[in-house]
Amino acid sequence: MKNIYASIITIGDELLIGQVIDTNSAWIAQQLNKIGIAIKNRISIGDDADEIRNTLDFETKNAQVILITGGLGPTNDDITKNVLCDYFGGKMIVDKSALENVKYLFEKIYHKPVSEINLKQAEVPDVCEVILNKRGSAPGMMFQRGGETFISMPGVPYEMQGIMEDVIPLLAKKFKLPSIFHKTILTAGIGESALAEIIKDFEDHLPKEIKLAYLPNYGMVRLRLTTSGFDKTKTENEIKSQFTDLKKLVKDYTVIDEDKNMEEVLGNILLKNKKTISTAESCTGGAIASLISSVPGSSAYFEGSIVSYSYKIKESLLNVKKETLEKYGAVSEETVREMLFGLLDKTKADYGIAVSGIMGPDGGTKENPVGTVWVIVGNKEKQVVQKLKQRFERKKNIEVTSIMALNMMRKFLVNGKN
Amino acid sequence: MKNIYASIITIGDELLIGQVIDTNSAWIAQQLNKIGIAIKNRISIGDDADEIRNTLDFETKNAQVILITGGLGPTNDDITKNVLCDYFGGKMIVDKSALENVKYLFEKIYHKPVSEINLKQAEVPDVCEVILNKRGSAPGMMFQRGGETFISMPGVPYEMQGIMEDVIPLLAKKFKLPSIFHKTILTAGIGESALAEIIKDFEDHLPKEIKLAYLPNYGMVRLRLTTSGFDKTKTENEIKSQFTDLKKLVKDYTVIDEDKNMEEVLGNILLKNKKTISTAESCTGGAIASLISSVPGSSAYFEGSIVSYSYKIKESLLNVKKETLEKYGAVSEETVREMLFGLLDKTKADYGIAVSGIMGPDGGTKENPVGTVWVIVGNKEKQVVQKLKQRFERKKNIEVTSIMALNMMRKFLVNGKN
Repeated sequence: MKNIYASIITIGDELLIGQVIDTNSAWIAQQLNKIGIAIKNRISIGDDADEIRNTLDFETKNAQVILITGGLGPTNDDITKNVLCDYFGGKMIVDKSALENVKYLFEKIYHKPVSEINLKQAEVPDVCEVILNKRGSAPGMMFQRGGETFISMPGVPYEMQGIMEDVIPLLAKKFKLPSIFHKTILTAGIGESALAEIIKDFEDHLPKEIKLAYLPNYGMVRLRLTTSGFDKTKTENEIKSQFTDLKKLVKDYTVIDEDKNMEEVLGNILLKNKKTISTAESCTGGAIASLISSVPGSSAYFEGSIVSYSYKIKESLLNVKKETLEKYGAVSEETVREMLFGLLDKTKADYGIAVSGIMGPDGGTKENPVGTVWVIVGNKEKQVVQKLKQRFERKKNIEVTSIMALNMMRKFLVNGKN
Repeated sequence: MKNIYASIITIGDELLIGQVIDTNSAWIAQQLNKIGIAIKNRISIGDDADEIRNTLDFETKNAQVILITGGLGPTNDDITKNVLCDYFGGKMIVDKSALENVKYLFEKIYHKPVSEINLKQAEVPDVCEVILNKRGSAPGMMFQRGGETFISMPGVPYEMQGIMEDVIPLLAKKFKLPSIFHKTILTAGIGESALAEIIKDFEDHLPKEIKLAYLPNYGMVRLRLTTSGFDKTKTENEIKSQFTDLKKLVKDYTVIDEDKNMEEVLGNILLKNKKTISTAESCTGGAIASLISSVPGSSAYFEGSIVSYSYKIKESLLNVKKETLEKYGAVSEETVREMLFGLLDKTKADYGIAVSGIMGPDGGTKENPVGTVWVIVGNKEKQVVQKLKQRFERKKNIEVTSIMALNMMRKFLVNGKN
């Protein structure tokens, strides 16, 4: 038995000029990994016939499954379908199921007349098998050549994801696949190299079929163990046993031993304790609230937020005293403390997070340079306050601050036991 | 004179299992485009020596500039530096400037002792030229072979971006580069194929050196013209003239004739009119506020927000009547209207946006299935209200709703003239 490898080819000039970030590849990689297909590589190329052909030739040297997205739109800049037709030596025919789908979409869903251009979407090479696209007019197409399987899908993520629902079982049936396991620990409060020193001995003795990766982000580091094998139980037991050892070594720095986001981790703690939360945000402008509420079911513990961007709102909605703002400024421990108390008064939430700072690029002063942020978390009885110094550009400063504030709240709940 | 092409190679197992989305490639592509270097392709590969060597061989067939990110960390899973040293036939030596930088960072910035592992970061192949990394301990490295230039950088975006500040002028000096121009129109309220029909004649007569692309997103479509040439003035005049024609054809659907985000477009209108805005958000949970405040300088027009996730907050902070919630429900025209009025009362902003809906995956009812969202924009005198039906998963529903709400506000300000 051997491993099956896939390559992902994303097609579109917009990917090469940086107008669009490729999120499809990561999503597809996740789905394939779950069924035991490893990714050999991912490549983004332009809407260029030669380039598409060369890449197909190159990728088949590495992989048995080639997943292609993009270039299937109805307009002239989209050439993938014709290039594939040519590459596999077919000719264009109208596919009945695809035609019905186009008509159905326009008549019943979009409520628009079907144009000539749209009808062309139902044409496919006669050497492919159509995989229906229930979410759009460009059909998915599967080509086979020798032992290789090629699947072409639209680049619109929502449509591609719909087609992948059919592709996954199809691939799982076609190949004898190993089980792939990933085990991840999220750590905080320790750097990559310091972690490496703590787990040096563990890493040196790790069996060679288990790989360890360090993934730093937001001042936190994820440690990930990966392995695969055809004996599912044996493979799983092996990684579990190593993971148990790893967990012991880094337990002082562990946020969670699952591949979860900070907002999910915090949400689960609140849910379990039947407590509610709210946020008072100045410089993060609603980003923390947005993270908390991005978790499905967060309405069970998220009351809401007061985004107090202006001084006026800090006073009128959060009861921050005018004198406090004048004496200490908006970016101060005193102000965030009053913001928190005002927030808890107004929202009646059990816990609150309050944030005020300067995210840049302008607005910095000598005392409070760009990146200075005060964060306070807690309830009426007890609070933890911290002055952060972010060193990124505006968007990243907001992002990092939001995650760090959620982590402060998490730690407060885990350690504080109020 | 010929065009110079670049390839971008991103290295890291995390890119292949989908744990991380590659944002570096898009960012690098944008920067190179600005100085006239076109991207031939972008490829993501794992931390695997053979794979790295094969990809370097393959990419040099296409490109004169090879930019490499990732795999330069201090831990064992990072192998890029050693593979490159081997590939270019060098041996490892300690670089003095890199060593000083590591020591400086640990002593002055991180306030941590420098470990053995960290000091190894200062080792580089003796066949490269070091490009200092002021934002981290792994130095950038430039290798030259024949007419080809290879640049290796860390995968951490913030560090990579810092190094690129030095790389860009270096490349601009090294090569004779053409000028690349992109002109983009953002349209709304019309589909890709309907647009194609309107501009068919224009597209058919477009000179072959100017490319037209359709980029659909969030129910809007971006039209982009691209060209390049060594005669800067001539090239620019040509694309400008075509762009003027295109603008006339789609003027009824144009949001803006620049490559700007909706939040920037709206911000500029508010700034110009010296008006302020605030938001009352239920289902978007602060995402609209977060978009508005992501724009530098938004404090000039953004007052703040009330995120009323619970019924309680809708009543207490936005003065929504209990009877309204009971009679019509939280997801109703009546509720968002009261939310808007409450918001304008509380924040004293000139304009407001209020949103309430069901983002999923749960919470849908027969009358209000998942994806139902009421949005209202306006001031006390005049409002525009709309019922949206989103059809994506939770995060995408929130994203699309936020952009559509900003667009409603924009249209209100442009057409309404209140």
